[in-house]
Amino acid sequence: MTEPKRSTGILDDTEAREKIVGLLTKAYWMEIETVMSYIANSTNVDGVRAQEIKESLAGDVQEELGHAQQFAARIKELYGVVPGSLDFSAEQSYLQPPDEQTDIVHIIKGVIEAESGAVEYYNQIIEFCEGKDPVTQDMVIAILADEEGHRRLFEGFLREYKAEGLA
Amino acid sequence: MTEPKRSTGILDDTEAREKIVGLLTKAYWMEIETVMSYIANSTNVDGVRAQEIKESLAGDVQEELGHAQQFAARIKELYGVVPGSLDFSAEQSYLQPPDEQTDIVHIIKGVIEAESGAVEYYNQIIEFCEGKDPVTQDMVIAILADEEGHRRLFEGFLREYKAEGLA
Amino acid sequence: MTEPKRSTGILDDTEAREKIVGLLTKAYWMEIETVMSYIANSTNVDGVRAQEIKESLAGDVQEELGHAQQFAARIKELYGVVPGSLDFSAEQSYLQPPDEQTDIVHIIKGVIEAESGAVEYYNQIIEFCEGKDPVTQDMVIAILADEEGHRRLFEGFLREYKAEGLA
Amino acid sequence: MTEPKRSTGILDDTEAREKIVGLLTKAYWMEIETVMSYIANSTNVDGVRAQEIKESLAGDVQEELGHAQQFAARIKELYGVVPGSLDFSAEQSYLQPPDEQTDIVHIIKGVIEAESGAVEYYNQIIEFCEGKDPVTQDMVIAILADEEGHRRLFEGFLREYKAEGLA
Amino acid sequence: MTEPKRSTGILDDTEAREKIVGLLTKAYWMEIETVMSYIANSTNVDGVRAQEIKESLAGDVQEELGHAQQFAARIKELYGVVPGSLDFSAEQSYLQPPDEQTDIVHIIKGVIEAESGAVEYYNQIIEFCEGKDPVTQDMVIAILADEEGHRRLFEGFLREYKAEGLA
Amino acid sequence: MTEPKRSTGILDDTEAREKIVGLLTKAYWMEIETVMSYIANSTNVDGVRAQEIKESLAGDVQEELGHAQQFAARIKELYGVVPGSLDFSAEQSYLQPPDEQTDIVHIIKGVIEAESGAVEYYNQIIEFCEGKDPVTQDMVIAILADEEGHRRLFEGFLREYKAEGLA
Amino acid sequence: MTEPKRSTGILDDTEAREKIVGLLTKAYWMEIETVMSYIANSTNVDGVRAQEIKESLAGDVQEELGHAQQFAARIKELYGVVPGSLDFSAEQSYLQPPDEQTDIVHIIKGVIEAESGAVEYYNQIIEFCEGKDPVTQDMVIAILADEEGHRRLFEGFLREYKAEGLA
Amino acid sequence: MTEPKRSTGILDDTEAREKIVGLLTKAYWMEIETVMSYIANSTNVDGVRAQEIKESLAGDVQEELGHAQQFAARIKELYGVVPGSLDFSAEQSYLQPPDEQTDIVHIIKGVIEAESGAVEYYNQIIEFCEGKDPVTQDMVIAILADEEGHRRLFEGFLREYKAEGLA
Amino acid sequence: MTEPKRSTGILDDTEAREKIVGLLTKAYWMEIETVMSYIANSTNVDGVRAQEIKESLAGDVQEELGHAQQFAARIKELYGVVPGSLDFSAEQSYLQPPDEQTDIVHIIKGVIEAESGAVEYYNQIIEFCEGKDPVTQDMVIAILADEEGHRRLFEGFLREYKAEGLA
Amino acid sequence: MTEPKRSTGILDDTEAREKIVGLLTKAYWMEIETVMSYIANSTNVDGVRAQEIKESLAGDVQEELGHAQQFAARIKELYGVVPGSLDFSAEQSYLQPPDEQTDIVHIIKGVIEAESGAVEYYNQIIEFCEGKDPVTQDMVIAILADEEGHRRLFEGFLREYKAEGLA
Amino acid sequence: MTEPKRSTGILDDTEAREKIVGLLTKAYWMEIETVMSYIANSTNVDGVRAQEIKESLAGDVQEELGHAQQFAARIKELYGVVPGSLDFSAEQSYLQPPDEQTDIVHIIKGVIEAESGAVEYYNQIIEFCEGKDPVTQDMVIAILADEEGHRRLFEGFLREYKAEGLA
Amino acid sequence: MTEPKRSTGILDDTEAREKIVGLLTKAYWMEIETVMSYIANSTNVDGVRAQEIKESLAGDVQEELGHAQQFAARIKELYGVVPGSLDFSAEQSYLQPPDEQTDIVHIIKGVIEAESGAVEYYNQIIEFCEGKDPVTQDMVIAILADEEGHRRLFEGFLREYKAEGLA
Repeated sequence: MTEPKRSTGILDDTEAREKIVGLLTKAYWMEIETVMSYIANSTNVDGVRAQEIKESLAGDVQEELGHAQQFAARIKELYGVVPGSLDFSAEQSYLQPPDEQTDIVHIIKGVIEAESGAVEYYNQIIEFCEGKDPVTQDMVIAILADEEGHRRLFEGFLREYKAEGLA
Repeated sequence: MTEPKRSTGILDDTEAREKIVGLLTKAYWMEIETVMSYIANSTNVDGVRAQEIKESLAGDVQEELGHAQQFAARIKELYGVVPGSLDFSAEQSYLQPPDEQTDIVHIIKGVIEAESGAVEYYNQIIEFCEGKDPVTQDMVIAILADEEGHRRLFEGFLREYKAEGLA
Repeated sequence: MTEPKRSTGILDDTEAREKIVGLLTKAYWMEIETVMSYIANSTNVDGVRAQEIKESLAGDVQEELGHAQQFAARIKELYGVVPGSLDFSAEQSYLQPPDEQTDIVHIIKGVIEAESGAVEYYNQIIEFCEGKDPVTQDMVIAILADEEGHRRLFEGFLREYKAEGLA
Repeated sequence: MTEPKRSTGILDDTEAREKIVGLLTKAYWMEIETVMSYIANSTNVDGVRAQEIKESLAGDVQEELGHAQQFAARIKELYGVVPGSLDFSAEQSYLQPPDEQTDIVHIIKGVIEAESGAVEYYNQIIEFCEGKDPVTQDMVIAILADEEGHRRLFEGFLREYKAEGLA
Repeated sequence: MTEPKRSTGILDDTEAREKIVGLLTKAYWMEIETVMSYIANSTNVDGVRAQEIKESLAGDVQEELGHAQQFAARIKELYGVVPGSLDFSAEQSYLQPPDEQTDIVHIIKGVIEAESGAVEYYNQIIEFCEGKDPVTQDMVIAILADEEGHRRLFEGFLREYKAEGLA
Repeated sequence: MTEPKRSTGILDDTEAREKIVGLLTKAYWMEIETVMSYIANSTNVDGVRAQEIKESLAGDVQEELGHAQQFAARIKELYGVVPGSLDFSAEQSYLQPPDEQTDIVHIIKGVIEAESGAVEYYNQIIEFCEGKDPVTQDMVIAILADEEGHRRLFEGFLREYKAEGLA
Repeated sequence: MTEPKRSTGILDDTEAREKIVGLLTKAYWMEIETVMSYIANSTNVDGVRAQEIKESLAGDVQEELGHAQQFAARIKELYGVVPGSLDFSAEQSYLQPPDEQTDIVHIIKGVIEAESGAVEYYNQIIEFCEGKDPVTQDMVIAILADEEGHRRLFEGFLREYKAEGLA
Repeated sequence: MTEPKRSTGILDDTEAREKIVGLLTKAYWMEIETVMSYIANSTNVDGVRAQEIKESLAGDVQEELGHAQQFAARIKELYGVVPGSLDFSAEQSYLQPPDEQTDIVHIIKGVIEAESGAVEYYNQIIEFCEGKDPVTQDMVIAILADEEGHRRLFEGFLREYKAEGLA
Repeated sequence: MTEPKRSTGILDDTEAREKIVGLLTKAYWMEIETVMSYIANSTNVDGVRAQEIKESLAGDVQEELGHAQQFAARIKELYGVVPGSLDFSAEQSYLQPPDEQTDIVHIIKGVIEAESGAVEYYNQIIEFCEGKDPVTQDMVIAILADEEGHRRLFEGFLREYKAEGLA
Repeated sequence: MTEPKRSTGILDDTEAREKIVGLLTKAYWMEIETVMSYIANSTNVDGVRAQEIKESLAGDVQEELGHAQQFAARIKELYGVVPGSLDFSAEQSYLQPPDEQTDIVHIIKGVIEAESGAVEYYNQIIEFCEGKDPVTQDMVIAILADEEGHRRLFEGFLREYKAEGLA
Repeated sequence: MTEPKRSTGILDDTEAREKIVGLLTKAYWMEIETVMSYIANSTNVDGVRAQEIKESLAGDVQEELGHAQQFAARIKELYGVVPGSLDFSAEQSYLQPPDEQTDIVHIIKGVIEAESGAVEYYNQIIEFCEGKDPVTQDMVIAILADEEGHRRLFEGFLREYKAEGLA
Repeated sequence: MTEPKRSTGILDDTEAREKIVGLLTKAYWMEIETVMSYIANSTNVDGVRAQEIKESLAGDVQEELGHAQQFAARIKELYGVVPGSLDFSAEQSYLQPPDEQTDIVHIIKGVIEAESGAVEYYNQIIEFCEGKDPVTQDMVIAILADEEGHRRLFEGFLREYKAEGLA
C-alpha cells in the first residue's frame, strides 16, 4: 500500500469514465424534467378519482429529485461537471398539461411513456457498466427498480380505465 | 349565508386573478430554475472553504422546491394552470458552472444576482396584491423573507472575498 | 415607558374591539358547527369512492376545531366572552345527513356551500380589521387560506361528477 | 363457514340494535355539547388558581371529542345514522359562562353536574347492553372510567373551596 | 397468601381449558389464512379505484398477523400447543385470486365472507368463555370489534358497486 | 339530567364500595411488596443464565409499580384513602434473597408463588365486582392478564431446570 | 432580470431603513432585559400558588430570547449593527426582585407593565413600517401577538388577586 | 425517447420472465411457511435458555413476512399472479412442534434445515437471473444475505449443544 | 498490567467497603419508603391548590425509585446484598395520610422532614467516602442535589402558607 | 431521624453559604453578559470563514443561558436572591462589536478573554467550596469543563490566524 | 428440499472461501487503523478552516467502525476467525500527527492516501468474488462507494490548497 | 477581570499538566485496544449461552469508543497531542481469540483482566488529579464507574461457571 500510482478501477479508465459521465448527464436531465412534469400534473388535475394519482405523483417528486441528486453526485465523483440550467431542453411533450383538467388518461399515458423511457435508458447504462464500474451499476439498478415498479403501477391504472371504455 | 351568489374576494375578481396567476407562473419558473442551479453548483465546487457554500446551497434546494410547490398550489387555487416543462426557458446565465471549479466568487455573485431578481420581483407581486388578495400577499411575504435573508448571507460572503482582494 | 396610560392599538379602541369580538363570535360558531357536520358526514357515507371524501373530512375535523380554539382565544384577548352552548343555533341546513347515504354529491355541494360562507365572511373580517387590528387580521388570513384551498378541492370533486353526468 | 345466513349477535337483533343506536345518539350529543362547554369555560376563566382548571378542561376537549367520534363510529356500525347539526339542542344550562369570569366555583359545579349526568347515563347503556352487545358495552365501560375519574377530581376541587368557605 | 394449593380460575378447570384451547386453535388458523389471502389479493388487483382496497388489505395484514400472535400466546398460557404448518388446511375458497385481476367485486365479496365467518365464530368463543375465562373473553371481544368494523367497511364498498349495477 | 340525586352505579352503593376499597387496598400492598422483591432479586443474582431473569424482573418493576398506582387511583375514586407506609407488613417470605446468589431456582419458585397469590386474589376481586362495578372489574382483568402471562413464563423457566435435574 | 441596479423595497430606502434599525435596536434591548427579569423573578418567588407564575415566566424566557434573536437578525439584514453589552441600560424598575419573595402581586404588575410597554412600542413599529417594509412588519406583528396574549394572561391573574382583596 | 416500442430488459423477454415468476412463487411459499413455523416454535418452547431462541425466532417473523411481501410484489411487477391459500402445501416436516416442549435441539435443527433449503434455492434464482433480470437478482441477493447469517447463527447454537453432548 | 493482584481502590478495602454497603442499605430503604409515601400522598389530597403538590410528588415517584435502584446497583457492585422486603421497617411517621384530605400543610411539612433526613444522611455518606470511594461519592452528590432542590421547593410552599396564616 | 434540628451541610453554615451566594451572583452576571455578547457577535460578523465562528457562538448562546439558569437556581437553593436587571453592569469591553464587521481576530481574542475570566473565576469557586458544599462544587466543575473546552477551541482559531500573519 | 447434501455456493468452496477470509481480514485491519487515525487527526488539528475537516473526519469514525464490524461479521459467516489485537500492525505512516498542528495539507494528503489504498484494495476483492460469492461482493461494492466519495471530497480540498499555493 | 495574566488552575501548571497528558495517553490506548478485543470476541464466539456475552460486548464497543474519544478530547484541551496509530502496541494477550470458539470462560476471564487493569489505572489518575485538575478527575470518575460495573457483571458470570465446575 506504499507505491504512489495504483489501479483503482473506473477512476483510472478515462475513456469509459467519460462515457459514463455522458450517460449520467442525460439521465440527470431526464429526472429533472420528470420533477417539473410531476409537480405540474399533480397540481393541475381535478376529481375524487384523481386524488390517488395526485398523491402518487406528489410523493414521487421527492423520489425523482433524489435520483437527480444521486446522478449529480456520481458525475462529480467521476470527475465530470454537472451541467447548468442553460443546457436543459424539454423532451416530455407527452406530459404537458392537457386541455381538459379532468383528462386523467392523458396523464397516465404520459407517465408510462416517461417511465418506459427511463427503464430503457437505465438498462443501457447498466449494460455498459458491466465489469467496468460496479458502483455506478449498483446505483442505477436500485433506481431502475423504482422506475419499473412505478411504470407497473400506472399500467394497472390504465388497464382499469380501458376496462371501463375510458381509454 | 343563504343567497346563492356571494362576493368572496379575489376569487370573484377575474381580471386581478388572472394577472396574479401570470405573476405566480413566472415566480414558479424562477424557483424551478434555481433548484437546477443550486444542485449543479452545490455539487460541482471543490475546497474546504467551499464546504460552507455547498451545504448552504444543498440545504436551499429543498427550500426552493417548496417555494415552487407553494406557487403551483396557489396558481391552481386561483383557477390557473401550472405550465408544463416545454414552457421552461433558462434565464440564469450567471449561475452556469464556471470554467474553474474552485471559482467560488463566481458562484457567490451568481447567487446574489438570482436572489436580487427574486427579491425585486416578489416585491412587485406583494404590491400588486395589496387590498386585492391577502392570502397570496401573505404567502409571498413569507417567501420574500427567506430570499432576503439568503441574499444577505451571500453578500457577507462576497464582502469577505473582496476584503481579501479575491473578488 | 413609565406613564400609566398608553395607546396600545386595538386594545384601546373600544368600539372597534367590540365589533371585532362580535365578528369573531359568529366565526367561532361557524367553525363549531362545521366540526359537527364533518363528523356526521365523514361517518355516515358509504362506498369506495366516498373513502377519499371521508378521509378528507375526518382530517379536517381537527383543523376546524383548531380554528374554533384560535377564535375563542382571540375573543378572550379582546376582552370578550366565549359564548356557552345555549347560544348555538344551527345554520348549515345544506350539510344535514342526506336521505340516501351514498349521495356524495349532496355532501360535496354542502361542503362547498359551507366553505364559501366562511370565505366570504372571513374576507369581511379581514377588511374590517385593516389598519385597526393587525393581529386578528393576520390570524384570519391564515385561516382563510385553509378554507380557500379546501373549497377549491371540493370544486374539483364536483366538476368530476358533473363530467360524468352525476351532478 | 360456508352457509349464507348466520347469527351474528347484535347485528341480527333489530329491536335491541335500534334501541342502542338511540342511546348512543344521545350520548353523542352529550359529548359534543361538553366539547363546546369546555372550550368556552377553559378560555373564559381568569386567575392563577384557575390555571389548573383551564389546563384540565383544555386537555379534556380532545378526550371528549374522541368519545364523540367513538360513539359516531359505533352508531354507523349498528346501521344507524349520525345526526346533523340541526338536531342539536343544548341542555347544559349549568355550564354557561358565569357573569363573573373569576367565579370558578360555578364552573366546578357545572363540570360535576355534567360528569354526573354522563356517569348515570352510561351506567344505563352498560346495563342495557348486558348479554346483547358486548362490543358497545366494552367501549362504554372504558369511556365511563374516564368520566368517573374526572368527576372525582372536580369533587376534590369543590371540597377545597368548601373548606375555605368559598362554596 | 400462604396455603400451597389455590383456586386460580380457568387454570384449574381442565375440561373448559382444553375446550378453549381447541377453539383458539381454529381461530389461529383462520387468522393465518387471512394473512395469506390479503397479501395475495392486495398485490394482485389493478386500477385506480382498487388502490383503496389494496391499501386497506395491506394495512390489515399486520393487524391479522397480530391477532394470530395473540391467539398463539393465549394457547400457550392455557397449556396448549400451537400447531405446526402441516396442520394447516385452506378453507377460504372465496378469496382465491380471480381470473380477471380487475374483478374487484370478487375480492370484496370474499372479504365479507371471511369476516362474517370470523364474526360468527368469535361470538361462539365469547359465549363459551362467559363466567369461565374472563381474560380470553376480553381478548376475543377486542378482536371481534376489529372484524365487525372491517366487515362493515366492505359492505359499504359492495353497496356502492351494487348501486352502479356492477355487483 | 336535571334532578339533583341520581343513581350512578357503584358510587351510590356504599357497602359494596367499601368492600371493594378493602380488596383494592390489599392488592395495592401486594404490588408494592412485589416492587421491593423484584428490585432486590433482579440486582442480587449472578451468572450468564441469570441475565434473562434479571432483565425480566427489572422490566417488571415498572409494570408492578404501574399496577400499584392504578390500584391507588381507583381507591381514591371510590372515596377510600390510600394507606401510609406504617401500614405495610411484608408477606413474601419466599422472595427474600437466598443465601447463595446463584440460586436461581429459589427466585423462580418465589416469583411463581407471588404471581399465583396475585392470580388467585384478583380472581376474587373480579368475581366480587360482577354486576356491581364494571370499571374496577375491567381494570383488574387487564392486570390479571399481565400476572397470568408472567406466571406462565416462570413456570416454563422452572420446567427447564427440572428437566435438567436442577429443581 | 438583467439590469445591474434594481429597486428592492426597503433595502434601497436608506432613511427609512436606518429609522427601522433604530426602532429594532430599542426593541432588542427590551427583550434582553425581559430575559433577565424573567429569570430572576421565576427563580425568586416562593409558594404553591406562585408555581403557575414561575412556570409561565420560565417558559417565556426561551420565547423572549427568541424574539431578541429575531430582532438581531433583522437588524443585520437591514445593514445595521447589533449593539454590544456596554450599550445596555436597564429600564424595568418595576420588575426588580421585591423585598418579600412571596409578594406575587408585585411581579404580576411588573409583567403587565413590561408587556404593555412592548405592546405599545411594537404598535409604533408596525405603523411606521406600513407600506415601507412588509417583512419587518410581518415579523413584529407575530411578536406582538405573543405579547398581547401574555399581557392578557397576567391581567387575568391580577383580577383574581383583586377579587380576593390582595391587590 | 419518442418511438412507441422499446427494449426494456426482462419485461420484453416473455420466456425468461415466466420462468422467474415460477421461481419466485415457490420462494414466496417457502417464506410464508416459515412465518407459520416460527410463530409456532417461538411460542411453544419453554425454559431460560430457550428465551434466546424464542426472541430470535419472534424477531424473524417480521423479517420473513417482509421477504414474502417482496416476492409477491416482484411477481406482480413481472406480470405474474400471487397464488391463493388453496395452493399452499406444507413441506417443513422438520419444523413441526416437538413432542417435548423443551426439546430445543429439535427446533435448532429444523431452523438450519429450513434456512439451508432457502440458501440453496436462492442461489439457483440468482444464477438464473444473471444477465437477464438485475432487479430480481439484486433483491434475492439481499434476502440471501439474511438467510445465510441466520443459518450461521443457528449452526453456532447447535455446536454448543453438541459440545455438551445434548445433540 | 500483567501481575495477578492489583490495588483497585475501594474494591480492595474490605472494611471501608462493608461500611459503605451498610450506609447505602439504609439509604436504599429511605428511598423505598419515600416511594410509598409519595404515591399515597399524591393520590389522597384534594383541591385545586393541591394539584401542584400532587403533580410534584407524582413526578418524584419515578425519581425516587430511580435513586433506590442506583443504591441497589451500587450495593451489588461493592459485593453487598440488597435486602428483602422482610427487612423493611417504616420510619416516616410524619408522612402518613392526614385525617383531613385537604390538610396540605401536613404533607408539606412531612416532605420537608423526609428530605431533611435524606440531606443530612447523604452528607454523612459523602463525608465518609472522601478519598475512599469516589464513584459512590459522585453518585450520592448527584442524588443530594436532587433532594436539596426538592426540600427548597417545599420550604417555599410552606412559607406561603405561613404568610397566609395557614401554617 | 426524629430530632428537630440537624446538621445538613452547607445549608447550616450561614457564613460560608452567604459567601458562596456572592460568588454565584457574580458568575451569574458573567454568563448573562456573555449571552448578550455572543448574540451580538454571532449576528454581526460577515464572511465564509466567519460562518464557523457564527455557528459556534450561536450554539453557545443556549449553553451560556443554561449556565446562568443553573447559577440562578443554586442561588435560590442557598437562600439567596437572584438580582434584578438594575444591578447589571457590563464588563466585557473586549467583546463589543468591532468597527469593521470582518475583523474576526477581534472577536476571537474577545472570546478567549471572556472564557479565561470565567475559567479563572470558577477555579476560585471550586477551591472555596472544597469540603464545604459538594453540590455547588460539582455543578461548577461541570460548567468549568465547558468553558475550558471552549477557550481551547478559540485558541486554536487564533493560532491559525497567527500562522497566516493575520493576528 | 429434502436431500441432506446441497451445493450452497461459497460455503462449499473451501479454497475460495479461505482466500476471501484472508482478503477480508486485511480489509478489517485497514478500517480499524483508519478509526485510530481519524480520531487522532480530528482531535489534534487547530484553526477555523480545519473545523470542516475535523467534523468530516469525526463523522467518518462511526462509518469506518461500521465497515470494520461488517467485515468482522462476514469473516465469521465464512467460517473464519476475527484476529485479536496482537495481530495489528500499523501501516498508515502518512496519517501520523504532523509536527505542526495547523498543517492541514499533511492530513488531507494522508486521507487521500488511505482512501486510495482502500479503493484499490476493495476493487481487488470485488474482482475476486465475481461469480464466487455475490454476498461479499455486494457488501464490498457498497463500502467502495463510501470510500470513493470520501476520496473525491478530499481531492477537492487539496485542489483548493494547491490553487492558493499552499500545497 | 482585566489583567492580562491569570491563574487558571491546571492550564497554568505545566509539570502536572504534562504528567496528566501522559496518563491520559496510556488510558486512550487501553480503550482503543479494548474496542478491538471486544469486536473480535463478540463476533467470534458460538453458542446459545454465549449470546448474552456477545450482546454485552457488542454494546460495550460503542461505550469504550466513547471513552477513547473523551480521553482524546481532554488530551487536546491540556495542550497534548493524540498519538498516531504507529504508537499503538497491543498488551491484552489475555483477550486474543481462543483456540476453541466456544471457550467462553477464556473470554470472561479476559474481560475481567482488562477491566481490572482499567480500574486500577483510573484510580491512579483520580488520585494524581486530586486538588490539581478537577475536570479530568470528574471525567475519569464517571468512566471508572462504568468499568467497575462492567467488571462486577463478568465476575458474576464467572462465579456461575465455577459453580458448575466449568471454570
